[in-house]
Amino acid sequence: MIVWVIYDITDDKIRSKVARACKDMGLYRVQKSAFCGTLNRNQLDELKILLEELVTNNTDSIFIFPLCDKDFRRIILIGEGFDRDLISNRKITEFV
Amino acid sequence: MIVWVIYDITDDKIRSKVARACKDMGLYRVQKSAFCGTLNRNQLDELKILLEELVTNNTDSIFIFPLCDKDFRRIILIGEGFDRDLISNRKITEFV
Repeated sequence: MIVWVIYDITDDKIRSKVARACKDMGLYRVQKSAFCGTLNRNQLDELKILLEELVTNNTDSIFIFPLCDKDFRRIILIGEGFDRDLISNRKITEFV
Repeated sequence: MIVWVIYDITDDKIRSKVARACKDMGLYRVQKSAFCGTLNRNQLDELKILLEELVTNNTDSIFIFPLCDKDFRRIILIGEGFDRDLISNRKITEFV
């Protein structure tokens, strides 16, 4: 299934670890604090557990959006700002 | 319909205007760069046009997610970091 992860993390180290966990799971960075990609049910559960372990304080939040194909096709993209320093490859074009 | 807006805007003034446009449309801030709430079709179109006018350079991106009820119920929230400086009321609790 297609999954989006968006996060708001105050601590730089934890934020980097969250980004790393998303990347390691095969998700692609689409904004500074947003990843998307395809995960199976097990991978989604694994990512959820990993992120729950990282978020330790009450100043952080992470939203994980599993999206149906219909909703995914309804996403509206405005702008073309895919920071090349952040996004090593342009796999996003496969998604949006 | 339930709509999420996530953005990555480099310019402070434009970023503030994007946040203001989301707020004025009745959306609630749930992260520094994420809003959600309920919009009808006309409001969604209006917001889209407003945001398109604001995003003028190729370093910015905004994703608008219209979500079906099923997908909305599948959203996973990790952490409880709703910054009180950012979120004037806790309407988010109605959504997540």
